Amino acid sequence: MKYLFILLLICLNTFYGFSQKRARDYGIKIGVLKTGENNAITDVKGVLVGQSTIQTGDSIQTGVTAILPHNGNLFQEKVPAAIYIGNGFGKLSGISQVKELGNLETPILLTNTLSVPTVCDAVIDYTLSLKGNEEVRSVNPVVGETNDGFLNDIAGRHVSKAMAKQAILTAKSGKVEEGNVGAGTGTVCFGFKGGIGTASRILPKKSGGYTVGVLVQSNFGGVLEIAGAPVGVELNQFFLNDQLNDPADGSCMMVVMTDAPVTSRNLERLAKRAMIGLGKTGGIASNGSGDYVIAVSTAQSLRIPHNSNSPKQLNEELRNDEMSALFLAVIEATEEAIVNSLLTARTVKGKHGTIQALPIEKTLEILKKYNRISK
Amino acid sequence: MKYLFILLLICLNTFYGFSQKRARDYGIKIGVLKTGENNAITDVKGVLVGQSTIQTGDSIQTGVTAILPHNGNLFQEKVPAAIYIGNGFGKLSGISQVKELGNLETPILLTNTLSVPTVCDAVIDYTLSLKGNEEVRSVNPVVGETNDGFLNDIAGRHVSKAMAKQAILTAKSGKVEEGNVGAGTGTVCFGFKGGIGTASRILPKKSGGYTVGVLVQSNFGGVLEIAGAPVGVELNQFFLNDQLNDPADGSCMMVVMTDAPVTSRNLERLAKRAMIGLGKTGGIASNGSGDYVIAVSTAQSLRIPHNSNSPKQLNEELRNDEMSALFLAVIEATEEAIVNSLLTARTVKGKHGTIQALPIEKTLEILKKYNRISK
Amino acid sequence: MKYLFILLLICLNTFYGFSQKRARDYGIKIGVLKTGENNAITDVKGVLVGQSTIQTGDSIQTGVTAILPHNGNLFQEKVPAAIYIGNGFGKLSGISQVKELGNLETPILLTNTLSVPTVCDAVIDYTLSLKGNEEVRSVNPVVGETNDGFLNDIAGRHVSKAMAKQAILTAKSGKVEEGNVGAGTGTVCFGFKGGIGTASRILPKKSGGYTVGVLVQSNFGGVLEIAGAPVGVELNQFFLNDQLNDPADGSCMMVVMTDAPVTSRNLERLAKRAMIGLGKTGGIASNGSGDYVIAVSTAQSLRIPHNSNSPKQLNEELRNDEMSALFLAVIEATEEAIVNSLLTARTVKGKHGTIQALPIEKTLEILKKYNRISK
Amino acid sequence: MKYLFILLLICLNTFYGFSQKRARDYGIKIGVLKTGENNAITDVKGVLVGQSTIQTGDSIQTGVTAILPHNGNLFQEKVPAAIYIGNGFGKLSGISQVKELGNLETPILLTNTLSVPTVCDAVIDYTLSLKGNEEVRSVNPVVGETNDGFLNDIAGRHVSKAMAKQAILTAKSGKVEEGNVGAGTGTVCFGFKGGIGTASRILPKKSGGYTVGVLVQSNFGGVLEIAGAPVGVELNQFFLNDQLNDPADGSCMMVVMTDAPVTSRNLERLAKRAMIGLGKTGGIASNGSGDYVIAVSTAQSLRIPHNSNSPKQLNEELRNDEMSALFLAVIEATEEAIVNSLLTARTVKGKHGTIQALPIEKTLEILKKYNRISK
Repeated sequence: MKYLFILLLICLNTFYGFSQKRARDYGIKIGVLKTGENNAITDVKGVLVGQSTIQTGDSIQTGVTAILPHNGNLFQEKVPAAIYIGNGFGKLSGISQVKELGNLETPILLTNTLSVPTVCDAVIDYTLSLKGNEEVRSVNPVVGETNDGFLNDIAGRHVSKAMAKQAILTAKSGKVEEGNVGAGTGTVCFGFKGGIGTASRILPKKSGGYTVGVLVQSNFGGVLEIAGAPVGVELNQFFLNDQLNDPADGSCMMVVMTDAPVTSRNLERLAKRAMIGLGKTGGIASNGSGDYVIAVSTAQSLRIPHNSNSPKQLNEELRNDEMSALFLAVIEATEEAIVNSLLTARTVKGKHGTIQALPIEKTLEILKKYNRISK
Repeated sequence: MKYLFILLLICLNTFYGFSQKRARDYGIKIGVLKTGENNAITDVKGVLVGQSTIQTGDSIQTGVTAILPHNGNLFQEKVPAAIYIGNGFGKLSGISQVKELGNLETPILLTNTLSVPTVCDAVIDYTLSLKGNEEVRSVNPVVGETNDGFLNDIAGRHVSKAMAKQAILTAKSGKVEEGNVGAGTGTVCFGFKGGIGTASRILPKKSGGYTVGVLVQSNFGGVLEIAGAPVGVELNQFFLNDQLNDPADGSCMMVVMTDAPVTSRNLERLAKRAMIGLGKTGGIASNGSGDYVIAVSTAQSLRIPHNSNSPKQLNEELRNDEMSALFLAVIEATEEAIVNSLLTARTVKGKHGTIQALPIEKTLEILKKYNRISK
Repeated sequence: MKYLFILLLICLNTFYGFSQKRARDYGIKIGVLKTGENNAITDVKGVLVGQSTIQTGDSIQTGVTAILPHNGNLFQEKVPAAIYIGNGFGKLSGISQVKELGNLETPILLTNTLSVPTVCDAVIDYTLSLKGNEEVRSVNPVVGETNDGFLNDIAGRHVSKAMAKQAILTAKSGKVEEGNVGAGTGTVCFGFKGGIGTASRILPKKSGGYTVGVLVQSNFGGVLEIAGAPVGVELNQFFLNDQLNDPADGSCMMVVMTDAPVTSRNLERLAKRAMIGLGKTGGIASNGSGDYVIAVSTAQSLRIPHNSNSPKQLNEELRNDEMSALFLAVIEATEEAIVNSLLTARTVKGKHGTIQALPIEKTLEILKKYNRISK
Repeated sequence: MKYLFILLLICLNTFYGFSQKRARDYGIKIGVLKTGENNAITDVKGVLVGQSTIQTGDSIQTGVTAILPHNGNLFQEKVPAAIYIGNGFGKLSGISQVKELGNLETPILLTNTLSVPTVCDAVIDYTLSLKGNEEVRSVNPVVGETNDGFLNDIAGRHVSKAMAKQAILTAKSGKVEEGNVGAGTGTVCFGFKGGIGTASRILPKKSGGYTVGVLVQSNFGGVLEIAGAPVGVELNQFFLNDQLNDPADGSCMMVVMTDAPVTSRNLERLAKRAMIGLGKTGGIASNGSGDYVIAVSTAQSLRIPHNSNSPKQLNEELRNDEMSALFLAVIEATEEAIVNSLLTARTVKGKHGTIQALPIEKTLEILKKYNRISK
């Protein structure tokens, strides 16, 4: 019964979600690089996103978002990966193994702070259940979170293993729902409703023509800027504002995918740049923030088989010199993904009060005032 | 019914456990510093250890070990802490927050690899249930593991939340059971049965007279040495032995407690030295090892209140110059704790075969051959 | 003779330097916090800045900038410090000791890439020469650099030990010269002439009222933004511009001082936020960048005596919770310091060509177009 | 005149040096793996070592040791490299760039603490002078040190650029002089005369048959053990000994070379294991220690050209799974290199007193007592 309800919500979300307008639909342009077809993390070929949402009454507002680098058995066919910690006040699981081995062996899941163990357990279940994994005794689930405890009854831990598995199993390519969905259902960003957001960039041919996609779960604070315009100040809603007591706290999970052939050391450098994208929206990585970036290369040639007959692996990877264009792409895509999360999120009445969506009309006026709306 | 059985096992373990002989009982002396009263992590005043064990038939051999820096509400009264990663092929949860904030807000729990999520969930339950934590929405469980999947049906995830809570709630000061108990029930070390081990050191008065205690969950490989004697080679059981195919893999969790007033930066340095203790037993921190050290100061004056009326905290802490004696203490206590884990563990027939205990008589002969038994 | 010439240049620089206009003089406002009296790193009480410049003909364009946390014997009275590495393609000396011990024991000097050894040697000379340091056998010079090899004959290594000592010995409080001076004499930023820049912020009383000052040596690239306005794009001068081949490379040294009582762990967090400030100017921390942030607390109560009769030190320091306002201050001051470095720098004809100053009139027009000039 | 004298000393050193006996000459066997032909870092094909020594009267006792991964232009043909910091109280230059880019572009030089700048300058000179480097404007010298200030007039900075260049230019393959030579001329280890030491290991064929070589500059303290025997305790010379006041301080530079095809991430893991080797000699990485490990792969196929027509590089490298045998090799070779440094060093009367060589006869008696001398 409960699941039927969830499914219903997912269908509704799907229906309404895609009708929502994003930054570019409003004429807001961020950065100098081109976007991919859907301006989404799924523009990186092979990447899949799945989401489960639970909204029950006013007090349950949470969910799960799953990002899969490819649709195969990730444990048997691992991908190069790195994690950068912008500010470590968070509970992302799986950090040390990704860093030590330079790879990712599960889907990446995002949820709320107190549901990380449940979702980890679901990722273990999922991995053990895959054909070919019968002998597996060790799994490193990578599960991130932000704290949706203002809108959501977080202590109730309403995310189930079933929801997490559903997010994985329903993951798909193409458009990605944003705003109040999945792990973004109950998040708050710059005092407004945050959520899931995504964007992508395509490098110029001379820089390799690679695609970089970013997906964020936005739940942080600071002094909001959109395309450089001081939206937070104009709306009189910002950290250290005299009249308010905005703690700026919260967190941001950022997932970066690219088809560029890059292994762990350069992926960590790539991940690091996402924090600049966050900073350009006015984020300050406050004390209470758990700001993590997980970067993955989907390059087919760099897949790491769990077992191999050879003691060696042949990695054809980009030289250090080639990284700068990718850095710019990550910065731009992260900034735009966060802005998209704010523009697509809607007002929510939740457990401890109501969080308003970013007032779109006023925001557009501000952007016009600062000449940041393209015709 | 199941819990009654577990309880029965715990009672039996308790009864037999303490009759087992440790390094010093055999005349094996490690290092130059004095031990504490019980030569255990609990020699650090206020530290408590609790363990839950499950041994059912041949295939279930696992458990939980809990270490508490003090018997109060750890969330409200946090302690300075640091984590050092010797080799990161493991799933210790809670790493980034401990590093970012320099503190620990939950008990430390150890279990098997695939039960980390269950035990994390139990730590969240426990924390939320404490008086004074009614408003808590964020908890950073620190739960470590090693992989007992050879002796234990690890994929079955037989550790329950109840077992984890029991380990916390039954934690006590005084003697600590070692060997096949708690999180050490199904572990393997240097090809022999490993398990829980502990030891302590007292600094000379001129160095402050502080106590350092270490508890390990030993599950790793290499070329075993005891007090410098080449036991592994003499027993013809070691990594890269021509006749064998010992992978040396596995992991070691090391928990360091001290009453010395030290905050996170110097605690991380202290933690780092435990890897030298591991190395002195012949451990090599192999590729597949998850070798983690969690170091905590129990100094009353350095407790960190969750909430405070003051924006500042007064920390009276040791100068850098004072650290060297503590470093030596950690090295010695870690080495001896690992040796104790081997000497107290017993042969186990488990899921995928039998692991013999270290052959005590032969080992003592070897130690005599190398003149390492004191009268 | 050579030194007379240098002295003359310094005098001229001093004279002209202070007549140059900075961001606020043009009505450009960055951020929401108040600036200190001089809007300079020297607004942090006790901090001194000294600079030596050498400009000889077209090919020698380089110098040294020294920043002193206090005017005493820094070796005997060390200060808490941390270093964060935004991108490590650089030669900053002294990194590991600052990190290990959490303190700084010399002035911080900035120069060009190939002159780091000479300047380190000068810092050792200086330290050994101070009264009270007669027995000193170990000194950890912290000397940073960026590469001025386009405008300057860097391989000639024209910086002398005398120049470095002069920068230290002439360091003073009050206004700080910016632009083409000291270590900024030959640097290039976003394709325009960069240099030394500085700014400061004062926290609101409710956040402690602390001062944060930043000084930068700007020599990096990306897509220039000033106060959020897309200056680089409007000037058609930016990284990955179709028509240009701007490598975006270069580096940025950032020095952060604060009187807030903060020790190494939180200073490292503070340092990390400077990279967001850099990012807000359009910097991307390109592959070839050496982006380093050195953060120091000048709080009198946290000074670390080299020798002490006590094994302990009493540190009254801010709780983690209090850091967020400081983070915002660092972000804003870094952004403004970089903008000041661009606005005050002048066109230079150097070794391998001419680098134009940022065209002030056009830039102001752009800022007006985007409504970023306050009346 | 001065240089003639130095040259003379070098000749004498060379002559006498090779007559000295090493661990294996005394029947001391460390570890289970086979050694290379010379049991030296130069067993790794292509590796060269050169040393310059200055011993003038009693007060000048210092020098330079250079290790070259290959005899070509290292700047144009860089090698994969990593640095691990065991304890960071030291002045090794070049750390951050090696970490960021994963490569080494100069020879590795070792010297005394206060001569690092001079030697860095010499490495820059050397690099700029090489054919093909005419356009080079940025060089990352990797120069390590330990503090020989007890035996040597360190503040006098008697190491010249000429000596450093000589060490580079005279570097050769084959046997390596140990003990009081080069950067080890004035060092002290466990209270006895330390110095340069080296050793190597060959992996079994089934593990790839690779060679690992280690060279150390030993200058640290603790509780000396040789092949597991408690030599320090038996000689009543150890840290925290009641009757003495041995500070245990000092440092150890460790250079690891291997022909195994391994890039930076796994080289860092390899480097980390050298600290276990140091620990097995009784080292504790005391507060005052600067313990650094630089690891390099000489594999021809992994060379990194400074310039390339291709944006990509093809790296055929070992899988993570293959690292464990290399780890064991580094541990063993480091332990033996340190022991060799002690056995080959001779008593020195220096600036502040006399440091005795390890008493060989007594040491051998102790080793016999503990049955550690093979026939």
